[in-house]
Amino acid sequence: MEAINFRPIGYIHSPFKTKEGSPRQSIHTPEVEAIIDIKPEFSAGLLNLELYSHIIVLFHFHLSPGYDLVVERPRGDRPGPRGVFSTRSPNRPNGIGLSIVELVKIEGARLRIRGVDMLDGTPVLDIKPYDSGLNPAP
Amino acid sequence: MEAINFRPIGYIHSPFKTKEGSPRQSIHTPEVEAIIDIKPEFSAGLLNLELYSHIIVLFHFHLSPGYDLVVERPRGDRPGPRGVFSTRSPNRPNGIGLSIVELVKIEGARLRIRGVDMLDGTPVLDIKPYDSGLNPAP
Repeated sequence: MEAINFRPIGYIHSPFKTKEGSPRQSIHTPEVEAIIDIKPEFSAGLLNLELYSHIIVLFHFHLSPGYDLVVERPRGDRPGPRGVFSTRSPNRPNGIGLSIVELVKIEGARLRIRGVDMLDGTPVLDIKPYDSGLNPAP
Repeated sequence: MEAINFRPIGYIHSPFKTKEGSPRQSIHTPEVEAIIDIKPEFSAGLLNLELYSHIIVLFHFHLSPGYDLVVERPRGDRPGPRGVFSTRSPNRPNGIGLSIVELVKIEGARLRIRGVDMLDGTPVLDIKPYDSGLNPAP
């Protein structure tokens, strides 16, 4: 099996301590603030990130126990059953989560962000600038 | 070092055969079509994906040679130097790419997509539904 290996660039500190208490999508928690602490060896990668008001955070669903390819009762408006790739379920073959959050402030290697649905302790895999001009308008 | 291991759920077949010939962002190639072939063991995860006109594709920058934390001359409008996390550079600590593409058609485990900037042979890590209602309006 062809393996692709990543390692965390940092960790999230959020008010959501358990899966049961966390929201499903960050759009539902526009006011919730959290912290991303970037590891010292990656902090130079934050240079001038404050040019952007919003960032894309890719993270690891580190507490997910595994996955089902078909989700019988997905959350949200659209009915099930649906394949896992048409859902935002954290239980997916490669457990990568994606949130678009507001970048409130950068203090050294610490990012203060707003609009958060990630669990406390979540490993961060990547940060990308969010630029709505890069999105299509479906 | 805490490692996180993923494996491809499938591969992209695109007209871009070399890094030099590929575009920087899929927004610049709205008419370019490509194929994602999902591995048979994951194809059940595609059920009802056609509910969505656009999908988010997470993929591996498999040809990137490594990374620099600071990008002296990033592409795009905004000047450098910038930290890699404020760029879309493929040369990043965890080489995860993100494209939002139009889902043209699903034929079994094969997705026909449009608006593509990925290289031919790119390993796909995840597919998520794209719903513009989940994005903030910065």
